[in-house]
Amino acid sequence: MPPQLITFLSDYGHADEFVGVCHGVIATVCPQARVIDIGHEVPRHDVRAGALMLYAALPYLPVGVHLAVVDPDVGAARRAVAIRAADHRLLVGPDNGLLWLAAELGGGVVEAVDIARSPFRLKPVSATFHGRDLFAPVAARLADGASLHEAGEPCDPDQLVRLELPLAKVEGGVLVATVVYVDRFGNLQLNVDHHELTQTGLKMGRSVALEVGPDLSHDAQYALTFADVPAGDLLLYEDAHRQLAVAVSHGSAAELLGIGVDDELRITAK
Amino acid sequence: MPPQLITFLSDYGHADEFVGVCHGVIATVCPQARVIDIGHEVPRHDVRAGALMLYAALPYLPVGVHLAVVDPDVGAARRAVAIRAADHRLLVGPDNGLLWLAAELGGGVVEAVDIARSPFRLKPVSATFHGRDLFAPVAARLADGASLHEAGEPCDPDQLVRLELPLAKVEGGVLVATVVYVDRFGNLQLNVDHHELTQTGLKMGRSVALEVGPDLSHDAQYALTFADVPAGDLLLYEDAHRQLAVAVSHGSAAELLGIGVDDELRITAK
Amino acid sequence: MPPQLITFLSDYGHADEFVGVCHGVIATVCPQARVIDIGHEVPRHDVRAGALMLYAALPYLPVGVHLAVVDPDVGAARRAVAIRAADHRLLVGPDNGLLWLAAELGGGVVEAVDIARSPFRLKPVSATFHGRDLFAPVAARLADGASLHEAGEPCDPDQLVRLELPLAKVEGGVLVATVVYVDRFGNLQLNVDHHELTQTGLKMGRSVALEVGPDLSHDAQYALTFADVPAGDLLLYEDAHRQLAVAVSHGSAAELLGIGVDDELRITAK
Repeated sequence: MPPQLITFLSDYGHADEFVGVCHGVIATVCPQARVIDIGHEVPRHDVRAGALMLYAALPYLPVGVHLAVVDPDVGAARRAVAIRAADHRLLVGPDNGLLWLAAELGGGVVEAVDIARSPFRLKPVSATFHGRDLFAPVAARLADGASLHEAGEPCDPDQLVRLELPLAKVEGGVLVATVVYVDRFGNLQLNVDHHELTQTGLKMGRSVALEVGPDLSHDAQYALTFADVPAGDLLLYEDAHRQLAVAVSHGSAAELLGIGVDDELRITAK
Repeated sequence: MPPQLITFLSDYGHADEFVGVCHGVIATVCPQARVIDIGHEVPRHDVRAGALMLYAALPYLPVGVHLAVVDPDVGAARRAVAIRAADHRLLVGPDNGLLWLAAELGGGVVEAVDIARSPFRLKPVSATFHGRDLFAPVAARLADGASLHEAGEPCDPDQLVRLELPLAKVEGGVLVATVVYVDRFGNLQLNVDHHELTQTGLKMGRSVALEVGPDLSHDAQYALTFADVPAGDLLLYEDAHRQLAVAVSHGSAAELLGIGVDDELRITAK
Repeated sequence: MPPQLITFLSDYGHADEFVGVCHGVIATVCPQARVIDIGHEVPRHDVRAGALMLYAALPYLPVGVHLAVVDPDVGAARRAVAIRAADHRLLVGPDNGLLWLAAELGGGVVEAVDIARSPFRLKPVSATFHGRDLFAPVAARLADGASLHEAGEPCDPDQLVRLELPLAKVEGGVLVATVVYVDRFGNLQLNVDHHELTQTGLKMGRSVALEVGPDLSHDAQYALTFADVPAGDLLLYEDAHRQLAVAVSHGSAAELLGIGVDDELRITAK
């Protein structure tokens, strides 16, 4: 069997050598492994943003070893794990919720091991750079064909840390949603998926009111894509992940509305 | 025949998973394809900057499939195309001028197809992420050996959208040039190429006056490289793309002159 | 022998096509070479920061050709070199100190050649982009199996430009250290390595005073990792490169202390 692909997501950024060093470790351990970088500009320590990026990317990535490191508690008591999901994907990273959405998307966790004392780790493991010393070498050995039970000690899948996202709700005909992610373009992703969206009764091409806080309301159109509204106008649309989102055509909804992650938005059909 | 190299340019940035997702799609469709990222920090929606970056890079890239996505009108009526240039390069992206300079550099368009309904697209094609659903999979299938006529419907090369750059001119001994690109270092690339430059009569090592607006004039030296003038001084030089450019040695011309893309500069030999 | 791995470090940034162009040149010259990017966001012209990043990454990179370009004096009289260290690594870049720490880490320079007029260079060599025209093609040919003496003219290893880092010192029981690098997270790396650290008498878990300038003193704890102190508190710790460093748990020491590279810090056990 050829080595599996490794994908790599982190909050290491590009200013330092951290990402390159992890690539170096992987190339040392498993020279044949191919690595695809999903992204390394997850906001520092933002486990949820990292989990959402991994979740969004996964359906478009070949099945492989999916390495993810957003690890505010590196060196503390949080577990380090490698996980197999029902869809055969292997997930490697800290057990802080970062891998949770990906595991659920993959049909749930079939097997999990604690890799803190993995025979594959680089020794000594530093107190502050587990990406290099622990997660990357374990991912590389898994890509090279090692099994999960060689990589660490079995642990109970039911005890893995979950990630809870806020739930949208409907209150008196008003859809109350929360911003869960803001992308480079200032588009606001809401916690309303395709299935929930179909139940809101919103009608394509119709106007909606977007309320931000008690006193501020904006008009928007529920549209298919940016080009359906004039430049500078707000639109509500189903984004490429089939989540409800808010954008400004040729502009930034985050700027126009002055809101970001965790802020609430009240949406009313007009 | 081994799969061709794919190069990839976009304005997706590195903050989100967009680039990684396109890599994932390519690896899924054509696992053997190698991908070289030309750059993904094209200013958002800046088709001309993207076209200039592709044009600058192309002479140094192996012949292959050249995927480029700067697509302000994604989801609207703009065509999506795959093109073969006379130099055998295949260009894939939106038909908005982004591919134009590259096609001209390659000796012109020999064949073009409209890929909006390509059999290679991922279904359903989202309204907002054609990089993932349309351009990347088409590029990957072309790299895998598919022909252009399998990838889409033939379209008339003469109807492709062109990119017009402003032309430099000489008015009463004054060279009137326009800034077309500003790089990371604040160097200003002008719309004067090697051939035009030889006709300006500028003499290496001599001083010139750079006028910015009606009242502001700066002294500069027409030099071979940064080190030919003291740190902090302005120089006019032929850059690595053989275009006339303005720089500040160990500094930023964009900052010192306070100008950027589309601004005019009047250059007079002293 | 299969082509060697090439690693690549520069201050080219990601805003332009410079990095992608160098990848293109390498892929043209040596299609089989694999390239690992160590990082390209070295602060512009900061030779020391580049040297430190290369030095930090090298122990985790397979032996190969290590291309590095931070080149404030491109086009001027500085030498361009390819070097073999005693550990068989090949280093390619400007001779301005950038390669020095890596060469020393590799046991010193065994062989060096001046590549300014290398037969492997792209002609004409531009005056401003030696990464593309000189360093990348030479690195690629070395990865392809060419020998150093084919790549350029022998030069005396003793005449290579060295990089001097400030030395820490102990004055009356006070450790006077200098910040040599600040990472993305605002962690301050000091010029005190593991060996020197063991001689300072600092005791794990004990408090220290950090003096910044004559009037400003902060309490910190000498700890193993971030999680050992409350969020927002200062800690002194041995970082992943086994250098003494200062951090703020879940925060930025650079911001809290208001200092950066080259600033001095006086450390006293309490």
